[in-house]
Amino acid sequence: MAHLEPKEVLARNLRRIRTSTGLSQEGLAARSGLHRTYISSVERGQRNVSVENIFAIARALGCDPQALIDARSAEGDG
Amino acid sequence: MAHLEPKEVLARNLRRIRTSTGLSQEGLAARSGLHRTYISSVERGQRNVSVENIFAIARALGCDPQALIDARSAEGDG
Repeated sequence: MAHLEPKEVLARNLRRIRTSTGLSQEGLAARSGLHRTYISSVERGQRNVSVENIFAIARALGCDPQALIDARSAEGDG
Repeated sequence: MAHLEPKEVLARNLRRIRTSTGLSQEGLAARSGLHRTYISSVERGQRNVSVENIFAIARALGCDPQALIDARSAEGDG
């Protein structure tokens, strides 16, 4: 299994968890106080997201922050 | 239990895990490629650390990145 970059681990977990909640990128943006284009770039693995924003995203999704940086969960995603 | 700020969650977990490994801040800095003063400021809760540096610190400590942002583990620490 290829070793995923940290930004890609976060990207895959975020996309999977967000879609499982039924939230759109717009809906997550509104809940988290982050911009929709920022959420979109995180999901494309383009952002070196800070711990404060990891917690803000997790809070908005109703998940543990740890779930967003779990490499094993991310590896299963395409 | 008071709700801890994300930076404080990371600070407490890092300090606890680092000391449990027997590594000094200097030793962790050398292993992780980060500066000792940066490690010190993270442990004082002064840094909004990025996901790439969370992974770099975890790799150097031999722990999962998730362990560094686990709020429940941090709450037990002083």
